[in-house]
Amino acid sequence: MNKEVDINELLKELSLSEKIGQLQQLASQFYIKDSEGELTGPLKDLGISEEKIWVSGSVLGVKDAEEARRIQDKYLDKSSTKIPLLFMADIIHGYRTIFPIPLAIGCTWNLDNAVLCGQVSAKEAALSGVHVTFSPMVDLVRDPRWGRVMESTGEDTYLNSVFGKAFVEGYQGDLSSNYNIASCVKHFAAYGAVEAGREYNTVDLSDRQLKEYYLPSYKASIDEGAKMVMTSFNTIHGVPASGSKYLMQDILRDNFQFDGVVISDWGAVGELQVHGVAADDEEVAEKAISAGVDVEMMTSCYINNLENLVKEGRVQEELIDEAVLRILQLKKDLGLFSDPYRGMDGDKAKQMFMCNEHKEAVRKVARESIVLLKNDNVLPLSKDKKIAVIGPKGDSTDLLGGWSWQGRKEKITTLKENLINEIGNNLISYAKGCDVNGHDESGFEEAVNVAKEADVVILALGESSEMSGEGGSRAYIGLPGVQERLAEEILRLNKPTVVLLFSGRPLEITNLSKKAPAIIEAWFPGTEGGSAITEVLYGDFNPSGRLTTSFPYATGQIPVYYNSYNTGRPKTANTAETRYVSQFIDIPNEPLYPFGYGLSYTQFQYKDFTLSSDKMTKDDKITASVTVKNIGDRKGTETVQFYIRDLVGSTVRPVKELKGFKRIELEPQEESKVEFVITEEMLRYYNIDCELVSEPGDFHAMVGCNSADTYTKKFTLL
Amino acid sequence: MNKEVDINELLKELSLSEKIGQLQQLASQFYIKDSEGELTGPLKDLGISEEKIWVSGSVLGVKDAEEARRIQDKYLDKSSTKIPLLFMADIIHGYRTIFPIPLAIGCTWNLDNAVLCGQVSAKEAALSGVHVTFSPMVDLVRDPRWGRVMESTGEDTYLNSVFGKAFVEGYQGDLSSNYNIASCVKHFAAYGAVEAGREYNTVDLSDRQLKEYYLPSYKASIDEGAKMVMTSFNTIHGVPASGSKYLMQDILRDNFQFDGVVISDWGAVGELQVHGVAADDEEVAEKAISAGVDVEMMTSCYINNLENLVKEGRVQEELIDEAVLRILQLKKDLGLFSDPYRGMDGDKAKQMFMCNEHKEAVRKVARESIVLLKNDNVLPLSKDKKIAVIGPKGDSTDLLGGWSWQGRKEKITTLKENLINEIGNNLISYAKGCDVNGHDESGFEEAVNVAKEADVVILALGESSEMSGEGGSRAYIGLPGVQERLAEEILRLNKPTVVLLFSGRPLEITNLSKKAPAIIEAWFPGTEGGSAITEVLYGDFNPSGRLTTSFPYATGQIPVYYNSYNTGRPKTANTAETRYVSQFIDIPNEPLYPFGYGLSYTQFQYKDFTLSSDKMTKDDKITASVTVKNIGDRKGTETVQFYIRDLVGSTVRPVKELKGFKRIELEPQEESKVEFVITEEMLRYYNIDCELVSEPGDFHAMVGCNSADTYTKKFTLL
Repeated sequence: MNKEVDINELLKELSLSEKIGQLQQLASQFYIKDSEGELTGPLKDLGISEEKIWVSGSVLGVKDAEEARRIQDKYLDKSSTKIPLLFMADIIHGYRTIFPIPLAIGCTWNLDNAVLCGQVSAKEAALSGVHVTFSPMVDLVRDPRWGRVMESTGEDTYLNSVFGKAFVEGYQGDLSSNYNIASCVKHFAAYGAVEAGREYNTVDLSDRQLKEYYLPSYKASIDEGAKMVMTSFNTIHGVPASGSKYLMQDILRDNFQFDGVVISDWGAVGELQVHGVAADDEEVAEKAISAGVDVEMMTSCYINNLENLVKEGRVQEELIDEAVLRILQLKKDLGLFSDPYRGMDGDKAKQMFMCNEHKEAVRKVARESIVLLKNDNVLPLSKDKKIAVIGPKGDSTDLLGGWSWQGRKEKITTLKENLINEIGNNLISYAKGCDVNGHDESGFEEAVNVAKEADVVILALGESSEMSGEGGSRAYIGLPGVQERLAEEILRLNKPTVVLLFSGRPLEITNLSKKAPAIIEAWFPGTEGGSAITEVLYGDFNPSGRLTTSFPYATGQIPVYYNSYNTGRPKTANTAETRYVSQFIDIPNEPLYPFGYGLSYTQFQYKDFTLSSDKMTKDDKITASVTVKNIGDRKGTETVQFYIRDLVGSTVRPVKELKGFKRIELEPQEESKVEFVITEEMLRYYNIDCELVSEPGDFHAMVGCNSADTYTKKFTLL
Repeated sequence: MNKEVDINELLKELSLSEKIGQLQQLASQFYIKDSEGELTGPLKDLGISEEKIWVSGSVLGVKDAEEARRIQDKYLDKSSTKIPLLFMADIIHGYRTIFPIPLAIGCTWNLDNAVLCGQVSAKEAALSGVHVTFSPMVDLVRDPRWGRVMESTGEDTYLNSVFGKAFVEGYQGDLSSNYNIASCVKHFAAYGAVEAGREYNTVDLSDRQLKEYYLPSYKASIDEGAKMVMTSFNTIHGVPASGSKYLMQDILRDNFQFDGVVISDWGAVGELQVHGVAADDEEVAEKAISAGVDVEMMTSCYINNLENLVKEGRVQEELIDEAVLRILQLKKDLGLFSDPYRGMDGDKAKQMFMCNEHKEAVRKVARESIVLLKNDNVLPLSKDKKIAVIGPKGDSTDLLGGWSWQGRKEKITTLKENLINEIGNNLISYAKGCDVNGHDESGFEEAVNVAKEADVVILALGESSEMSGEGGSRAYIGLPGVQERLAEEILRLNKPTVVLLFSGRPLEITNLSKKAPAIIEAWFPGTEGGSAITEVLYGDFNPSGRLTTSFPYATGQIPVYYNSYNTGRPKTANTAETRYVSQFIDIPNEPLYPFGYGLSYTQFQYKDFTLSSDKMTKDDKITASVTVKNIGDRKGTETVQFYIRDLVGSTVRPVKELKGFKRIELEPQEESKVEFVITEEMLRYYNIDCELVSEPGDFHAMVGCNSADTYTKKFTLL
């Protein structure tokens, strides 16, 4: 397909300013204004001259295929280089047909779902003119205050790694098809560790933590072939990531051997000055290009200063050449030199948007992402019961969540509408009760009255989409507004009540969890959320989602995560009455709901956990096997989780680390033997000298239904 | 005074097991049991044989001079070495006469108070048989959930450093007097950074943060001559501090050139095994002695294993010799070879305990430590008003705070009693309203009725002593129990009301602060707290305390501290309406009350802030001067604070760093010129290569009444 462009030859033909142009990324709005006269608005704010947009190499965000085509047309007409523009956009969990948020996809513990999300998203996006998506985000997140937890698959390095790979596979495939797009893994590095969970805040962690827990998931996506890496907004080790030679040279290029394109996050190059590591735009450009940012997104330090910096000898032209070559290579890989209009097909796109195949795909993922948190004999519901739907999320179309800019809320069927479709108008009543946010309790009375008349109450509560995602950090992570007060009023009726939560993060629901007989976490479930939830409520689908982030017992417990260290004074059954152990005096150490947790409408029994040997050499393997039996009366899916603990290390080791998992579907009374193979590689960690090695000694192998409920066997690495 | 002991010669006379004995510290209870028969109880739990207590080198905690003398007597009789025991104890803010907690002493911003606290404590302690105190704690604390924040002087490195020095000076003097004791600075290192503020939890931070913010305060105390250093319970850089060669060799010995004794915290050597970095007691002993712990407190890994380890060649005897020499040197420095009963004088101690001089000292410090947080024309009170004292702290003797084991609550005059003493029984009424903790609201009605009859209400609320201090981490840092509910009921009466807080940490009082017309933070004010508060309430003393820790707006804002980095997207007046800045969507970025904040009954005006030059070379100095005028009608003390910001660095720099402060007392209408000298040394920081240097460039000098309210001048380091 590709025209045989020799990018090295092409590079030679480019002037320095044309080369620097390739390093600039501008939003599409710069290309679609009608007038080309006086500089006003965005262009002026950006400090960029009109002519420079016609050497810039890539475009951020584009409305649709027609717009992309128009921009590419005009650009090829006006540009001196005739090198096609590259279109990039944030396609995070679907383009027009919206999947559940990534946090929810993670809760499926089903990598196929990430592949599927990637494929469907890529198809709709590619047809709409997008070449690259800024996804997956594989940032490890241990702090649910951070709004972008919705964009993560959770608190575990291994899970983030395998999900990241699956997303990359889904988006990219082998890139030979016009239905694939390139994947840009983000945010390099450790953006998920922003202090206090406050957006864009400082990150501080040890190099050991960085290497052991934060970096592997980026590496996994890179190893999977992700074409691009995006730098993060935060500082780390005292330096903004977008100006960090350590991150981009030592780790990314030298250690990870990444040879793709590095792009800054929006404005992050220019922000080096705001961070206070550069005095002016010139110094910014010098630092960023030297550190290793290839593409500057939405600030103009490169395009306005690099030429001078090269002339002054402060920046080597080779650095720029290398960056340009990487960009040209990506354009070539995408086939843009053969077809600058690659994929763009507005008509076909419209056929694909919300087509049955795509809707079925998102419905499947939504079903599997729903986590049953509590169920005291309320669920599943019987279809002959009168249902009162109460709460601001009950008849809401705000089910898509953040990062769904191409989604269409007006196409959403709400939960109430789905329930009516399912069991008929006469069995469903509804009262909003209150808004998602705010102090108004005037709707409580009606809500209580509506609830009184029903057999069962569904309390649909939660966050609005803008309460998570970028810029969506919350200091209070309980239910917003007066929703918890509404829940108290309804729960006082002692009706069979299901609390149905919609949120972009784990919520603080400890008080609610004590009072509500049933709780379902539905996250932001996407385009087909309402129908997926309805299936779960009535048992047409047996819930199988498992948490990938701990639900904190209280905000004051944050950070709380399953793979913590033991400390020198752990709280145990023996020390529970002692003051001088690692604890709070007012809450338990355990989260409300642990990592890996989730209920089913059936029960699973674990038995016969055995290891094929209790010792192994570095070349051996041990097979751990366990038999899991469905002892309930309903088909269900269990996610069998496998953890390891290194009992003694040259540095402290976590009490538990996820090393594998398997989803198995079992008919009633059916049982299945599940196996995990323990390899030496699985036992490696960063030792006292920060080298990735295994150390001889004793380990625990653990298997169970969640991180807090496991069976243990000891083995020895010789 | 000292008998001329040659400790090198003495060392030669000791057997290996006698040498190892010097490294063992046991609690006094091991020496005071009557029977010496069968091993039971503590000794057995510790796994230590009867005979080993007679070679052990030091004792932890002793009841009084008589007991110390008895133990020393018996030890010198039974011990083969006849080397006197060293007695150590936790004397943190007073021995019998109790000063305000260290957090409160910090709020005086008056180093003389730390010296005074050290001197008075040392005198009472020395007379009671104590030779070494485990104080000062100079751990930087940015998380008020941690209970030991009460033992710190706050969130600032510089302030902790100068206060640490002052405490050391107070305790030790030149150690020539029997009224001085040796000081053991703690906890090395970074114990204040325990994750989630949870006691004994893991610490993770970058080496840069460690060096720049955490280590300087330990170094300051060491430079002041502190004789000992205590290791901390936490891991850091993946290794428990008590097993960290990096901390004890590279930093403490090599970099800080510390030649005194290193002691573990209670049990922290044995806990290496629990942390998971040693498989058994033998490995624990090997790791701890090799890393650099001289004295093992309250576990027995050294005494039971070192001899074998030396024989097996796993530990060099030289290591043990060096540790023993350091201990012998300390015993010599304290004069114990001349007088094993140094200082011990029970009769004199009893004369000193709570003597007028000591009570006046603690009252002075208590007065100055009280921080006026809010005052809407309620304070000071007039002595003819009817006062209702409401709340569980109003007639409470729990005013001493944690770490006051020798304090006597029964000697405390409560706030209510002090008020009665001041203005007479007929003007004071009292109702408890509720307990400090618990759910019982049955006392509210009486409290409201009592409040109704009064002209003014004093709401005395807060924590109990055991809610902070070691093992006192709280996840909820608001007022415990139903106290805030009680406050709401009382404030609804719209009486002139003063909320008087007693706490060992900054509390979350945002809602209360909106409703209460006046708020005073009295901390745990010590033996004379009630009378000091009374002086402040009536204006006999004009409050002058200034916060050394930020009061968080919400728990979800933690950590919040004044010297944060700017980030790439700071929230400013210009960006306040933007979503995409570093912020929470539900609370401000600012704490409720900032570092350095505190009100007075008078007002101070700042004017004529000038710099003697706007540029300096590295050898120059710039004098910053400001005139401060008392523009109110009452004498008062202002703490003028001086901050610097490095505008551009090779790494990110804080928006503000405290570099100096001056307390000035001004009569009404009096003004005073305050000067700060800017030196090159003041501008140093850990650059990109982690070297402590200054870099040419622009700086801001700032002066003001607190960290959030400053005047700025720019200058340049050439």
